[in-house]
Amino acid sequence: MSNVRVGMVGYKFMGKAHSNAYRALPMFLPDVPRPEMKIICGRDPQGVEQARAQFGWQHAMTDWRELVASSEVDLIDINAPSDAHKDIALAAAAAGKHIFCEKPLALTLTDAREMLTAAEQAGIKHMVGFNYRFAPAVQLAKKLVADGRLGQIYHYRGWFLQDWIIDPDFPLVWRLQKEIAGSGSHGDLGAHQIDLARYLVGEFDEVIGMSETFVKERPMPTEMTGLSAKGSKDAPRGPVTVDDATLFMTRFANGALGSFEATRFAAGHRCTNAFEINGSKGSVRFDFERLNELEVYFTDDAEDVQGFRRVLATDPAHAYMDAWWPPGHTIGYEHTFTHEVHELMKAIAEDRQPSPNFVDGVKCQEVLEAVDKSIAERRWVEITEMG
Amino acid sequence: MSNVRVGMVGYKFMGKAHSNAYRALPMFLPDVPRPEMKIICGRDPQGVEQARAQFGWQHAMTDWRELVASSEVDLIDINAPSDAHKDIALAAAAAGKHIFCEKPLALTLTDAREMLTAAEQAGIKHMVGFNYRFAPAVQLAKKLVADGRLGQIYHYRGWFLQDWIIDPDFPLVWRLQKEIAGSGSHGDLGAHQIDLARYLVGEFDEVIGMSETFVKERPMPTEMTGLSAKGSKDAPRGPVTVDDATLFMTRFANGALGSFEATRFAAGHRCTNAFEINGSKGSVRFDFERLNELEVYFTDDAEDVQGFRRVLATDPAHAYMDAWWPPGHTIGYEHTFTHEVHELMKAIAEDRQPSPNFVDGVKCQEVLEAVDKSIAERRWVEITEMG
Amino acid sequence: MSNVRVGMVGYKFMGKAHSNAYRALPMFLPDVPRPEMKIICGRDPQGVEQARAQFGWQHAMTDWRELVASSEVDLIDINAPSDAHKDIALAAAAAGKHIFCEKPLALTLTDAREMLTAAEQAGIKHMVGFNYRFAPAVQLAKKLVADGRLGQIYHYRGWFLQDWIIDPDFPLVWRLQKEIAGSGSHGDLGAHQIDLARYLVGEFDEVIGMSETFVKERPMPTEMTGLSAKGSKDAPRGPVTVDDATLFMTRFANGALGSFEATRFAAGHRCTNAFEINGSKGSVRFDFERLNELEVYFTDDAEDVQGFRRVLATDPAHAYMDAWWPPGHTIGYEHTFTHEVHELMKAIAEDRQPSPNFVDGVKCQEVLEAVDKSIAERRWVEITEMG
Amino acid sequence: MSNVRVGMVGYKFMGKAHSNAYRALPMFLPDVPRPEMKIICGRDPQGVEQARAQFGWQHAMTDWRELVASSEVDLIDINAPSDAHKDIALAAAAAGKHIFCEKPLALTLTDAREMLTAAEQAGIKHMVGFNYRFAPAVQLAKKLVADGRLGQIYHYRGWFLQDWIIDPDFPLVWRLQKEIAGSGSHGDLGAHQIDLARYLVGEFDEVIGMSETFVKERPMPTEMTGLSAKGSKDAPRGPVTVDDATLFMTRFANGALGSFEATRFAAGHRCTNAFEINGSKGSVRFDFERLNELEVYFTDDAEDVQGFRRVLATDPAHAYMDAWWPPGHTIGYEHTFTHEVHELMKAIAEDRQPSPNFVDGVKCQEVLEAVDKSIAERRWVEITEMG
Repeated sequence: MSNVRVGMVGYKFMGKAHSNAYRALPMFLPDVPRPEMKIICGRDPQGVEQARAQFGWQHAMTDWRELVASSEVDLIDINAPSDAHKDIALAAAAAGKHIFCEKPLALTLTDAREMLTAAEQAGIKHMVGFNYRFAPAVQLAKKLVADGRLGQIYHYRGWFLQDWIIDPDFPLVWRLQKEIAGSGSHGDLGAHQIDLARYLVGEFDEVIGMSETFVKERPMPTEMTGLSAKGSKDAPRGPVTVDDATLFMTRFANGALGSFEATRFAAGHRCTNAFEINGSKGSVRFDFERLNELEVYFTDDAEDVQGFRRVLATDPAHAYMDAWWPPGHTIGYEHTFTHEVHELMKAIAEDRQPSPNFVDGVKCQEVLEAVDKSIAERRWVEITEMG
Repeated sequence: MSNVRVGMVGYKFMGKAHSNAYRALPMFLPDVPRPEMKIICGRDPQGVEQARAQFGWQHAMTDWRELVASSEVDLIDINAPSDAHKDIALAAAAAGKHIFCEKPLALTLTDAREMLTAAEQAGIKHMVGFNYRFAPAVQLAKKLVADGRLGQIYHYRGWFLQDWIIDPDFPLVWRLQKEIAGSGSHGDLGAHQIDLARYLVGEFDEVIGMSETFVKERPMPTEMTGLSAKGSKDAPRGPVTVDDATLFMTRFANGALGSFEATRFAAGHRCTNAFEINGSKGSVRFDFERLNELEVYFTDDAEDVQGFRRVLATDPAHAYMDAWWPPGHTIGYEHTFTHEVHELMKAIAEDRQPSPNFVDGVKCQEVLEAVDKSIAERRWVEITEMG
Repeated sequence: MSNVRVGMVGYKFMGKAHSNAYRALPMFLPDVPRPEMKIICGRDPQGVEQARAQFGWQHAMTDWRELVASSEVDLIDINAPSDAHKDIALAAAAAGKHIFCEKPLALTLTDAREMLTAAEQAGIKHMVGFNYRFAPAVQLAKKLVADGRLGQIYHYRGWFLQDWIIDPDFPLVWRLQKEIAGSGSHGDLGAHQIDLARYLVGEFDEVIGMSETFVKERPMPTEMTGLSAKGSKDAPRGPVTVDDATLFMTRFANGALGSFEATRFAAGHRCTNAFEINGSKGSVRFDFERLNELEVYFTDDAEDVQGFRRVLATDPAHAYMDAWWPPGHTIGYEHTFTHEVHELMKAIAEDRQPSPNFVDGVKCQEVLEAVDKSIAERRWVEITEMG
Repeated sequence: MSNVRVGMVGYKFMGKAHSNAYRALPMFLPDVPRPEMKIICGRDPQGVEQARAQFGWQHAMTDWRELVASSEVDLIDINAPSDAHKDIALAAAAAGKHIFCEKPLALTLTDAREMLTAAEQAGIKHMVGFNYRFAPAVQLAKKLVADGRLGQIYHYRGWFLQDWIIDPDFPLVWRLQKEIAGSGSHGDLGAHQIDLARYLVGEFDEVIGMSETFVKERPMPTEMTGLSAKGSKDAPRGPVTVDDATLFMTRFANGALGSFEATRFAAGHRCTNAFEINGSKGSVRFDFERLNELEVYFTDDAEDVQGFRRVLATDPAHAYMDAWWPPGHTIGYEHTFTHEVHELMKAIAEDRQPSPNFVDGVKCQEVLEAVDKSIAERRWVEITEMG
């Protein structure tokens, strides 16, 4: 297996998470091609050079067009802000490079589809960064559903609750600006929820949503990185142009009912990315704040000892866990990326598309925009309406 | 304070719960008029006589018209199946008796309003049995919201999950027949959720819902009481004419967003009547399966020790708890009725309407039917449309 | 079945709990003789008369000797402070009355044994009030152990944590005075722990303990009832003559290892009466603050879904629960007494000793005093040393 | 700051954990000297070479004496089986190399003291691997105690529960052989508990313990790594020469009471390394299976909202967390080692001893052996007796 030479655009929150995954892979999951951390790329020369040194990349670059054209890389990793995804991806596809793109795939469904088409025509491998699929507890949920151990699925409940912007004086970071982020809670958090639901239960049939921006103006930031930012509450204010919270209901193609909520205004929730699935034979519950655990219920347990089990998904029976530590020794957020990159490298080695890929990115975007349309038009929207 | 002489129609699940409350009141909360358990009434002579003896009523009767007309009673307690509520209530009001009616107040909004009008014209006291308000942990939630300790409310999430009919061979009990129950999960469980939300956050502005009947036919039962029933899976089957599950979203008059779910198909949930409220200064969470607890979060806790507190609402600082046992000694489901009856007796003594009363019953019914309408017409429905 | 006529000595915390149990029994568990609430007895005429009226007893009395001699009663219920247990019990036995005595049975092992001998010689029925046995979740634990579903027992961990006297200005109530209470946390809380362990795992073989009184002087109270009291922090102080906390380790006769802790200085614990049992095939955990729940683990669950189940012991499959409400509708502290009185009445009807009875009271006292001896002599003490 | 060149002896479970920490440090906590992964050393040439390649070390070696003598390394990391610690450490000290030694420091107190003396005489930096101190939630507990926010400490409860050898056919791995491991649960798990208690509450004054080996013979293994092993249940059996479980009680120098338990026979517990501390102003609780969380209680919270808070120790206010991900994005087991190595590198840069160091290793060993002595002699043993 030859190495896969990576060129990465972006070096902040996601850039750090991806870099760590590339570094960890050969040590913990060495059965796949080794990602070679060739070139890191970002607009700010000082920033990207510092990231290069700190994260362990061989070279730094400031022009992604140059990166995409480089013969030194086989794979382009795109984790720049969302508004940059499309152009980079199209160029990468044109250059015949594999693409690993963070979610959301694009700012619009039209863009996402254009990216998918380009990737397919180029015959490259393409992946989209729905990393939560790769928590072992989520993989266990998938297995239980897929093996029929939960029976027919009746209900899916998904909620992604955060509180990082609940302070009305928190600055107007790029994630709150529609032209860069595309969307607020909906596209950031809801996208993960939609992908998890598709992964676990299947396709959406129709949706209806509602949304709100609770704090309509915020002070301009002086500095921002990851989810944090600095700024004065007395700074000039600008308009928040994305949703603070979006809720929607759905009917799945298989007949299950679903409800979803994404908000950044749920005090006390730092990162509650949670779901519950109820089927005719059992239920599962997951909360990312306790990502090593899956609560599992079976209707056929003996009648005097029925109850949700707290399964600590750290046993050898759980996906990826023999790569890490003994049972009971938990893993963290970053490990989901390591597992994700493992799938990417494995798919490249096996000459197949990784999962999730741009098709999943497009389908997620279809649901996101169907929800937006349902909000704008105050009616149920069928996914097939999205063309 | 003179006793309040009670005549009660119904003697099954709710009849037992109410009887226990009347018995417990003078022992645990003796500061209000004593309810005198005068007459219990039910159609089956043997059944009602057995209940009389077991629950401790003075007399038994089989004709509720006779009961309502009796000069021996001051208050009519109606907990017969829902389709009987209206006629009994109208007759009781006409006879000048106070009324304590189980929820849902009536099968339809029209009926509920007719009952309210009759009660108001008769000048009697009227109460509706939304007992969950009276859990001390719920009272604490109310206090925190009312005192502004959660700040501006952004989100209300309510879900009432059960699994008692998840077996497709469970018999077709009266709660699954529209002509008797009026509605399924929606009217039974959703009604409690709607009342709690109104109590805690305020009025609903507009709603949109969806519902499903997962199991469309069930065997006819041979015997039923409370929520349980007997029957053969090989018995002839009849159609389930109510919803197994209903979900809806709402916008509250105060701008908060709400989502609600009521289902009898959530495996592993025996009686998860739960809610979470997120405000600008804090959050609370409640689950009836742990009814003595309220989880509480405040944004202004010291920055290194922020987290949801598990408050065991059994201290003297919590409503009703000095009537019972020392801190840490929990109470159960039935105590909510004792507290409810305390409010009823107190209101009678103070010559004011108890809370919740028929106005709350009507408003709850407005929301229920607005949701039904939104489902039928597949669109958002404003509560004001309900007339 | 003829009624059992009860005469009760004591009318405070335990008197209220017992009275409620006698009242509830015929309504909820009517398959046993009905306890007739004949006479309530206490030293303070006003206090006992008020209790009589409030709790629903037919007569009040101030002299327990008169009560014991009365031909109106069949059973003497003793829940006066612990120093009064022995004299009343001996007199009751001499008068041929059945006895239901609160724990601890007596202030000393010698006294306890004298009470047992007297009861046995009189041929009466005798019960001791270890009410925690009667929580349905505890009954489930017992069943799992007894049926071998946990396999060979390796570990028992018991802890009873409270914090009601953690404030050093809390008054010097009778429970903190050795001459009345006999012992502090050890006899009050530890006694329950010892009884639960004996009930669930079997007899103790040897013990070694340690104890401490953290606050050595407290202000004298002006008023006290149940676990609460009033008083000024500036009142004169008297010495605390009992333990604030006692810990001990044990080896059980069956080879299991045990550790126990009873304290009133565990901040945040209102009434954590908890245990965990680990066996070769599984484990169980119980915490009285969530008394409707038992956590259960089985080693033979499928390897990918192993985990502690949270069993809500409110199903028909759980002891006593068909007497109360539908699944998921929880019960409270007081219900343990109703179940306890059910066992008492059932035993009387079946002409057998109830369980737990004075033998259990004596055996519990043996362990308590063996622990005391081990503390005094700073060495392991075998239970057989207690004679 | 010049790099610190590391030579490591051992390449299995701990070797992997340490290697990962060295790799992660410059990326996540780059403010300290960079550990240079120079030489990895192990007896099996193939095994160590594979580890070298996989973990990213520059060279591999099979003779630790050669390693210790090498001028290429500044620091010797010892994570070989426990029986090898002493010789390697003495040689490393003699060679003037800093030492990072896994716990337990040595097989005996005598050996541990010899190692400490050698290290002190050599003037090197020495650290012992009590990694659990470095969980941010544990650091928070330490801060709360140290700042007096829990008041006077009354109780410490520590329990380390595992179940990995509960199957009687699990092979006789080296951790079950006294001559290699020195001790069983006591030295492996109890050592962590003792160190945490010393770190959080202070020195031990006296102890008394008990222990048991439940399964006395086991099949010889064919292969073992980390905590897992392979083997046939029909293989010849050898004697288990260490404890399966050890319990002990203690009195701390500050007057607090402590109880400890370490067992590998607690079904359902994969790695419950837990403690609870109760003080006059509050309490904290920790469980390693949820290592990102600390439960915290304060007695001075408002009287209606008192309760244990679940603090997710992932905020910038928590130790080390600004090095990782945004709030709510949890870390795992391995991160404790990264933080530990950060302290080691920082201490080297600041020319001070890291904490914990060999003094802590010796003091932990004193308590371990005092407990052993108390078991052998069936009496309380004061720590000062250990000389």
